[in-house]
Order: sequence, then structure tokens, then C-alpha cells
Amino acid sequence: MTDYDFLADALAPDRVSVDEYARAEHAGDWGSRPEDEVEPDVVVWPTTTDEVAAVLAAASDRGIPVTPYAAGTGLEGNAVPAHAGISMDLTRMDDVLDVRPEDHQIDVQPGVLGSTVDERAADHGLFFPPLPSSGDISTVGGMIATDASGMQTVKYGEVADWVLELEAVLADGTVITAGSKAAKTSAGYNLADLLVGSEGTLAVVTRATLELAGRPEQIRGGRAVFADLADAGAAIADAVQSGVDVAKIELMGRRAVEVANAYVGTDLPDRPMVFLEFHADHGIEEEIEFCRTVFAAHDPIEFELAEQAEMGELWQLRRDMAYALDEWDPEMRQLHPGDVTVPMSSFPDIIRFARERADDAGLFMACYGHAGDGNLHYEILVDPDDAAAVERGEAVYTAVVERAIEMGGTATGEHGVGLGKREFLPEEHGAGGVRAMQAVKDALDPDGILNPGKIFPDGE
Amino acid sequence: MTDYDFLADALAPDRVSVDEYARAEHAGDWGSRPEDEVEPDVVVWPTTTDEVAAVLAAASDRGIPVTPYAAGTGLEGNAVPAHAGISMDLTRMDDVLDVRPEDHQIDVQPGVLGSTVDERAADHGLFFPPLPSSGDISTVGGMIATDASGMQTVKYGEVADWVLELEAVLADGTVITAGSKAAKTSAGYNLADLLVGSEGTLAVVTRATLELAGRPEQIRGGRAVFADLADAGAAIADAVQSGVDVAKIELMGRRAVEVANAYVGTDLPDRPMVFLEFHADHGIEEEIEFCRTVFAAHDPIEFELAEQAEMGELWQLRRDMAYALDEWDPEMRQLHPGDVTVPMSSFPDIIRFARERADDAGLFMACYGHAGDGNLHYEILVDPDDAAAVERGEAVYTAVVERAIEMGGTATGEHGVGLGKREFLPEEHGAGGVRAMQAVKDALDPDGILNPGKIFPDGE
Repeated sequence: MTDYDFLADALAPDRVSVDEYARAEHAGDWGSRPEDEVEPDVVVWPTTTDEVAAVLAAASDRGIPVTPYAAGTGLEGNAVPAHAGISMDLTRMDDVLDVRPEDHQIDVQPGVLGSTVDERAADHGLFFPPLPSSGDISTVGGMIATDASGMQTVKYGEVADWVLELEAVLADGTVITAGSKAAKTSAGYNLADLLVGSEGTLAVVTRATLELAGRPEQIRGGRAVFADLADAGAAIADAVQSGVDVAKIELMGRRAVEVANAYVGTDLPDRPMVFLEFHADHGIEEEIEFCRTVFAAHDPIEFELAEQAEMGELWQLRRDMAYALDEWDPEMRQLHPGDVTVPMSSFPDIIRFARERADDAGLFMACYGHAGDGNLHYEILVDPDDAAAVERGEAVYTAVVERAIEMGGTATGEHGVGLGKREFLPEEHGAGGVRAMQAVKDALDPDGILNPGKIFPDGE
Repeated sequence: MTDYDFLADALAPDRVSVDEYARAEHAGDWGSRPEDEVEPDVVVWPTTTDEVAAVLAAASDRGIPVTPYAAGTGLEGNAVPAHAGISMDLTRMDDVLDVRPEDHQIDVQPGVLGSTVDERAADHGLFFPPLPSSGDISTVGGMIATDASGMQTVKYGEVADWVLELEAVLADGTVITAGSKAAKTSAGYNLADLLVGSEGTLAVVTRATLELAGRPEQIRGGRAVFADLADAGAAIADAVQSGVDVAKIELMGRRAVEVANAYVGTDLPDRPMVFLEFHADHGIEEEIEFCRTVFAAHDPIEFELAEQAEMGELWQLRRDMAYALDEWDPEMRQLHPGDVTVPMSSFPDIIRFARERADDAGLFMACYGHAGDGNLHYEILVDPDDAAAVERGEAVYTAVVERAIEMGGTATGEHGVGLGKREFLPEEHGAGGVRAMQAVKDALDPDGILNPGKIFPDGE
């Protein structure tokens, strides 16, 4: 058993725990399968950059794994301490350090919730555009770790696009500042965007300067209903390709609507739907009419605008999809909750492919996603005790990921690789690409202590 | 003398030259000082990825430096073969490989001109938003190498924001594909954005998939004239902070206008000016009025819209600034043509600081820049034979860069580090940040053959 007494030199006693409950709580995340979960030997809650640095330096010296942890809302097992060791919980580093509305900037610690960033921005007429759907429970650190994105990414981009500067601690305890508070920089390598999406395998982010945007003057929402999932997908692709300026354009398949209705108690029509939101400073009605015209070519059953309160309910329902699926059927379990993302023109095809494969296999599958980015969640629910169904489900799951990669897309658009998508990394990036990533990893974390077992396929 | 016979195995004879003219032509770029220029031993013009890979693999084996070269329009000596060896000229890899308007994507080789991308996009009602001012003579490869940006970056972002996927050859000849053709990905490390801005020191880009945008329905331009440079700077900062949706907002100081007038033969008023362009699908007039209202608080002498033809002349004049400065006075030479970029709220201060320092030192300085990004070019012209003036000029130049860094800004917003900004890297990123960059460099190019002598300060 590793001796963790050295942590007493780095942290106050109340910020170190080997308590069973604390260890169990840090064994998995939303997306980890029970069989993949691993309890850390010890959990630490640093509150300052210096404490993070002290823990990492000491762990490096001893070759002890350190896995950063925050809200645990990852979908790919990103925060599972796969090689045990230390789980570094950053939720006590939750201060908003500075707000500079004149520069549209906010400085936060990694444990700050996404929704807190948005609220503090709102005090100044600003907002945080890439806020993910889980933003009211997930942290800035986690969003940076996975280069998260959300419903508004179709218009405003992903988290990486709104990260200006990061303070981060390397494995050996070195504190670096990457990026710049200027709107742009080409001063050396873009380490900020390298750290974004690196899932705590290269460094631990201890401060982020995020960019904010001015709130649009006009916001309108609506929904369109289709008879067929393929029509809904085609309408979305056509709208994006035609340059309709949407701020949100979300797909909900029939099954997804059914699941959401059951969870929330709504009675939305049992049909594939597209939820929409438009942001503009001028002429929002014309833009909505443009969208209506484009959609009209794809046989919508209806296209209706909604009042803000009603839209609020639809967006909440969309955000609750993960919970709704969990509670749909106590006998069933989600196989893999992550996503795939494809070029827009392939979006109708990937939906059709997934739908057909699931139907052929007789599986329950709910489709939804940030469709304007070509993003698809296809949630297969199976009875975990039905080995044949699990096997068919795994085959469909894998086939869809591989098809997405063949289409020029990605195995994971917004949730990182974690444990869940490791096997697909060579297919997506080739052996050379994976080797190059591994070289970067070895350069910045030569002892391999930071979140080991993630991103790279076993044996790489 | 190194033996370059091995190149005959990698390339056809007409794509290798030790000709004196070819070597001289590849010794410097726009921004390199004559005393910093170095002739390569040999110039090669590969035409395929395989040829690039063959040259790099052979050069790696032999420890021979390879410096990528394209249009030579860099401003920081980025393409100077500082350690001689091979200059790899990529201008014969100039094919547009594919245009996929349905995905707003174009695949190009690195030697394609920026303006060609824009023209091919225009065939489909699209455009390439981050096109730099030099786009009609500079290449995609060069833009990627420096993470270039341009007049429209204030609205649309920099080159990195429009690069989806890169094919690149590592120093050892390994061909990798980084990024994805999907709109977003979090599949492993973001090597695409790491390569963007790495100035050919990590890999040679051989193919880029770029994202395109739909052309706006409405485009209007105009100019505002101010009595004072500080007022112009404050008006720009106020407009950006207030959320005015500008597509271009360019500052021209009084001296810059004077220089441009002389070069182009125009007779613009001899005053600080702001050139503006607005892009919208709806309500452009309201947006312009909003801008006029914000500017009104900063005592503009005039704020006038212009017809498209007239605006075309203003933008051409702005683009010609580099030539205009070269020809202003045959006795004088630009000290350092690069930029600094600061957070928006510091923009009026950095202008004032630069202006005061230049005036105190009795120097001729022309200010201009992509001001909406907080970007400033402050061109000091001196008689190179006047050692005292050169020394005063260098002191002012350095003081402004250091002040920009102190303000949280960057030594180089859009032209890379090259030779010119190396000394400032530790000030901007700290010793730890520079060491982390060096570790990445050593990991991907262990023999140090790719564009050696750039980015990192001597001795690092």
C-alpha cells in the first residue's frame, strides 16, 4: 500500500481523506459503467494553486497517479481514477476571481459552476455562450477538460473558443500561464488550446480567463414537429447549410420525446421534433421566416413559435434528457451515453444509419443532440442481464462510431475520450496521430502520473 | 559542406536547386532585417505530401535543418533559414483539392493563396472570414504557420478558428491528420490548433480543410475622422465594449494616413481615422446608427458612410500600408513591422504610450491596426545610418512590447514570433511556459531540424 503521509506537507488535514464514502464518491462519473469504476486511495481538496502544485510535485516524485475530479458529470468516465492513487477534487476552488465587463472577461477557479459564470456575466449584460446543457451542475474545469459545448455552440462555438488564458500546473508542479488576455495571440505554441480537451492528462487547470459576449437584444424560440426522424435531420442540415442564423437547433427523436414526456410530465406530440432558438439584435422575425421557408421543404407537421416561458420548459426538458433516460425503465441501463459528431451533410445519413441498425437489432434507442453541429446522442437502453441484447447494443454503438469516423467525423464531439472512446482513437487519428499525441503526453508528464489510463488505447 | 545528393532520391532534379538566385530569394522575408538573413544551402519545391515526407525523413536522419517557405510575407523573419540547410518552398503545392459547399468546407494545399480560397468560396455564396490583409499574395500555409488574422477577425475570429483538419508531416516523415471535418471534436489532444501558429517548427502542413461562412446579405462601410489619436482609440474600445457588431474596425493614425495618401495618391484628411465595415443579414442601418451613437461620445469630426467603390479604395489603401511605409522615404527604414495586441480596455492606453514615447524620442511613427482586436502596428521609421536614432527607436519598440505584455496582452497578435519576438517569449509566458513549449518541440522534433532558431530565445 502506498504511503500517503506526504500529503500532510502539502495540505491541511481536513483537505485529505481516505474515508470510504469520499473514495466511493470519486470512483466514477455519470458515464462510467460500474465495472469500470475504481476507488482512489485518497481524495484531496486543494484550495490554492500552490496546494495543487505541492501535491503534483510530490506525486511526481513518487510516481503516484493523480486524477482531477470536479462535478463528475463526464460521460466517458473521464474522471475515473483508473489507476487509483489520488483523486484531486477541485470543487473547493470555486471563486470568481475577477469580472472585467469592459473587456468581456471573467477570471474563475476551476470549481466554479458554468451557470455561475453565466449569472455573473448577466450582471453586466453579458453571457457565456458555450455553456453546456449540464452547466448548472458542471464546472468550468470539467468543461475545459473535455472542450465541452452546448446548445448554443452552433452559433457561438465551443468552450475552447471562449478560453483566453489558463493558469495550469504541470505534473512536476510547475505553474504555467498559457494563452493571453488579448483577443488574439500568436506568441509561441497554443498551449491553452492544447490543454483544453486534454482531460487533465497534461496539467491541472487552476484558473481560467473566459471571454463573454453581449446578450442579444432579441431572443425567440420555437419548435418544429416532423413525421419522420430523417426529415427532421434533413431540415436541420438544410437550415445550417443555407446559413440560417440559429442560436440553438436541437433534435429530439420520437423515443427521446416519449422519454422526456414521461420524466417531466409533459404531453408533447409523440413525434420527432426540432427545438429552435434565434438570437439577433435586429430582424429576428425575418430570420425565423427564413428558417420556416427552409424547413417547409422537409414536410414539417408544424412549426410554431413559443413564448419565453414555454420555451424555458422545452429547454429544461432537453437538458433533463440524461436524467429522463436514467429513469425511463428501472430494468434498463444506458449502454454508452456519449456522442458522435459528423460533417453537416452527413448528419441525415448518420441518423438513418443509427436508427436502422437499432431497429434491425430490436433495440430501444433514443436520438437527440446539438444537431446544428452535426452532433448526435444515440442512447441505447438495454437490460444489463440480457447478455445477447447487450452484445447487439455494443455492436450498434460501435458501428455508429465507426461510421461517423468514416464520414470524416469524430468519435466524440464534446465529451472527450476518457475511458469510453479510447479504442476509436487510432481509427480517427491514425497510428501516427496517436503517437504524436503520446509524444506530447510524455513530454509534459514524463512519469505518466496525470489521469493515467485515459485517452490512449491500452498498450499505446 | 553538407552533401545534399540524398535529395535526388526524394525529388525530381528540377525541384532541387543550389542556384544562387534561388538561395538568395529564400534568405529572408518581408520582416527580416538584412543582417538577419541567411541563405539556405539548397532550395526544394516538393509537390506532394510524399515528397515532403521523404525530404523530412532524410533530413532528420542527417540532422539537416529544414525551414518551410511560401510567399515570404511574414513580418517577423519567420521563414528565414536561420541555420541554413534546406529551404522547403511549398508554393508548388497550390491545388484546391475539394470544395464542399454543403459543408462550408474547402480542402487546399499549403501553397494556395488566401484570396484563391475566398474566390473559390465566392462561387458558392461563401467566403473565408479570417483572410489577412496580405491575402492576395500570402498562402494558406503561411497563414496557418503564424495563426494569421485580418480585418474581419474582430467579428469572425482568426485563422485557427477556421481550420478544421490538417494533414501534416512530422520531422521524422510521419504523416498525421489532426482535427476533424466535423464542426467540433474532443477526440484526444487538439494537435490541429497546436500546429496552427507553430511556424513550421513542429511539422509541415501539407493539406488544410478550412471552414467557410455564408456571405452576409448586407455590407456597408464608412469612415470616422477624429482630431486626436486617443479619441479614435477610445471610440473603438467603446464600440467593441458596447457590443457594436462590426466586421472591420481599423485604426489609421495621422502619420499612417499621410503615408497612405502619398503612396496611393489620395487626399484623405490628415487626421486619425477609423475605417468601418458592417455585415448583417437584417437591420444594418440600425447597427450603423448604434455605432454612430457610441462614437459621438468621442468627438468625431465626421462619421460618413461610403459607397462600395469608395470603400474598396479605403480598404486597398489600408492593405497597402506595408508597401506605403517602405516607399515613404528612401532614406528611412522600418525598424520592426510586427504588432502588439492588448485587451480592449487597454487599447487607448497602449496607443497613447506608444505615441508619447515616439514623440519624446523625436521619431517618425505611423500607427495603424486591426483595432477592434486591440491590435496595434506602430511603425517606427529611422535612418539606418543614424545609430543614435536606431537606438532610440529600438528602445521605444521594446518599451511598447513590454508595456503590452504588462497589460495582459501579447508581444505578437498575428505575425508569430519568428526571429523578431523571441526575446519577449519568457516575459509573456514565464520560464515555465517557455519550458513547456520547448518540451513539446523536443517531443515532436527531437533532432531539432524544423525551422531551428525560431520562437525560442537563444540558449533556451
